[in-house]
Amino acid sequence: MPVSQTDLEAYADLVVKVALNVQPGQTVGVGAYVEHAPFVREVAKAAYGAGARYVDVIYTDEYVRRATIEDAPDDVLGWSPPWFLDRRSSMEHQAYLTVRGHPDPHLFDGVDGSRLAQGRLKDFDAIVLSQVTKRLVNWAIVAFPTAGWAETVFGEPDLDRLWQAIRRTVRLDEADAVGAWNEHVDRLKARASALNERHFDAIRFRGPGTDLTVGLHAGSNWQSAGEKTVDGVAHVPNMPTEEVYTTPDSRRTEGTVRSTRPLFLQGTIVEGLEVRFEGGRVVDVQAERGADVVRTQVETDAGSATLGEVALVDGSSRVGQTGITFFDTLFDENATSHIAYGQGFSSTVDGAQDLTADAQAAMGISTSSLHTDFMIGGPEIEVDGLGTGGEATPLIRGDDWQLD
Amino acid sequence: MPVSQTDLEAYADLVVKVALNVQPGQTVGVGAYVEHAPFVREVAKAAYGAGARYVDVIYTDEYVRRATIEDAPDDVLGWSPPWFLDRRSSMEHQAYLTVRGHPDPHLFDGVDGSRLAQGRLKDFDAIVLSQVTKRLVNWAIVAFPTAGWAETVFGEPDLDRLWQAIRRTVRLDEADAVGAWNEHVDRLKARASALNERHFDAIRFRGPGTDLTVGLHAGSNWQSAGEKTVDGVAHVPNMPTEEVYTTPDSRRTEGTVRSTRPLFLQGTIVEGLEVRFEGGRVVDVQAERGADVVRTQVETDAGSATLGEVALVDGSSRVGQTGITFFDTLFDENATSHIAYGQGFSSTVDGAQDLTADAQAAMGISTSSLHTDFMIGGPEIEVDGLGTGGEATPLIRGDDWQLD
Repeated sequence: MPVSQTDLEAYADLVVKVALNVQPGQTVGVGAYVEHAPFVREVAKAAYGAGARYVDVIYTDEYVRRATIEDAPDDVLGWSPPWFLDRRSSMEHQAYLTVRGHPDPHLFDGVDGSRLAQGRLKDFDAIVLSQVTKRLVNWAIVAFPTAGWAETVFGEPDLDRLWQAIRRTVRLDEADAVGAWNEHVDRLKARASALNERHFDAIRFRGPGTDLTVGLHAGSNWQSAGEKTVDGVAHVPNMPTEEVYTTPDSRRTEGTVRSTRPLFLQGTIVEGLEVRFEGGRVVDVQAERGADVVRTQVETDAGSATLGEVALVDGSSRVGQTGITFFDTLFDENATSHIAYGQGFSSTVDGAQDLTADAQAAMGISTSSLHTDFMIGGPEIEVDGLGTGGEATPLIRGDDWQLD
Repeated sequence: MPVSQTDLEAYADLVVKVALNVQPGQTVGVGAYVEHAPFVREVAKAAYGAGARYVDVIYTDEYVRRATIEDAPDDVLGWSPPWFLDRRSSMEHQAYLTVRGHPDPHLFDGVDGSRLAQGRLKDFDAIVLSQVTKRLVNWAIVAFPTAGWAETVFGEPDLDRLWQAIRRTVRLDEADAVGAWNEHVDRLKARASALNERHFDAIRFRGPGTDLTVGLHAGSNWQSAGEKTVDGVAHVPNMPTEEVYTTPDSRRTEGTVRSTRPLFLQGTIVEGLEVRFEGGRVVDVQAERGADVVRTQVETDAGSATLGEVALVDGSSRVGQTGITFFDTLFDENATSHIAYGQGFSSTVDGAQDLTADAQAAMGISTSSLHTDFMIGGPEIEVDGLGTGGEATPLIRGDDWQLD
């Protein structure tokens, strides 16, 4: 066990108290891989300690998923058993933890990219996205190290090194991790406020292979770590988190963008991704590796080819400071600025939250069953806020935040 | 990995082809502990190879279960989430595999025995028992070794030694394991036929601490390995299996019986169990260890204090021949003769299967939400079949089968 019992307990405590903020009487759903069992067991104990009524754990198995994707009949790809959907639907007003950290980076090598993309559990993802956008669940996504993940990252299964990196990014190296998280959340909220005061019309990214303008809504609100459910439960959905983000106008993305970090997507690694946008929509996808998974994704539904998120991260990020590419979006998106195609967050756009999905789509909020982030920031990327007249305000230069 | 890839694949193949006999288009449900993942992954591949439509795996975690039993509110003990019950209900006309092999024999040490017994998932067990007695599922229970289980058995986590023992009991040491199983099933069926020809009125067990008479129905049929579902799918529910068994008249058990092997029950070990019956019902439970779990069980419902099964096993059993106490009923019940309190098998009693539960209970078929086997045979135990006039026919002497 590379993670000490002390660390396991401290991490579980942080996740239950800060990330989920479990309330007395809540069910605590957990979705994890079998490889995460040592951590999940501590989370269960901590959750009951916080007054949970019931801890409802589902362990999934990526090797079984591979067998399904390889050998199941076509009509089963992307299908979920009714009980699996019902379980997630039952999590409204409850807490839900998803644990990340894949067991084997080469697990899906040689599997047909199109079958892999079809194997995504669309109905399940739609329930999750709906619960998230309607703020019905105090949810969080955190990571736990596995030998396979460590091998992806370091070329050897150095679990301890991976855990030490995770440990620092989630601030467990602080004597008072809970207090450190409160300070960190306040700092990110200050950035979001500074952006909101300027009412930018668009964000522009420029750098090698990238000249992209992402148009914003007049009512786009920048947000950061720290959500609150409709029941008033404050939670921190991602640990780590370093971003400020909003939902752009899905009709006003123009130009070309090159990813600056690898993207680990549905078990496969996408590298050297280049995407061109016209009139808001993806019109071309190229990549050194894994382009077919992205192409299948952006063709999924009406909103999968338009942007649902734009997020800014500078070089002060603890994730970025590790110097590690984690090959996991939870970390890598927090190392640097990023955009996501697919579902937008209606809660970030004034007046949008209570509209129907069709009405949201009509006003330029991307509506999709998926949401895929990819990383476009870094030291060579200049980020500006543009006013309605096109005047530019530097936001990030040389990976340093510019706006007070 | 103490179990070689070759063995894993051969075992999964045997389980899918013989134990479950998976049919094309079936869903294959699997219930296993997280520790069984290496085996479950091979079962998934073999099941898809046999034409399964979907392999639906639930991994449970005994450490999370302990946390629930220790710390959850009282009303959650014994409760199952609706999705968990719905999933099992959806398995009618499908295949279902349960994998045994506990991770830690001391996991429940110090946990209140009454809470442990209350923590049993009654509604779930009732669904399983109903599907089994109505022959709606081609199901099987098999085992996979864990370090904790090996430690219970040998005092050290000698996984290889445990696997070699299991491997022999499930006949994977035979060049043609599938053929060996067919022969074995035929041999047990011949014993059941010999018993059925005699139409015994009762079975008597005599030995140290034991003088027990188990009254049979006129229509009690002896059965053995090899069931057939209502859909005509032949399957072998237990691997290993060495028993011939029937359901006795629940009103006609008289005398005292002492268990001859430890019983591993709900995570705790029951040793030196002594049970006294009057008029069919348990009237006293004593044990050197774990009596409270048994007492709580027999008080569960109307049929939990009466016998639902009597089973005969002699010394030719491969399980018995290992000389190992496995501390798992799946094995230990196949080492020697045994009885079970709780639910009877209506399919073993003429004319009973289509009756309501109340009508079955009225005719002396034990009706309960549980079914717990405990072992009462061995070299010192004489087993006789009694005719209606009390005349005795030796069935087992010196652990050898006597009836041709």
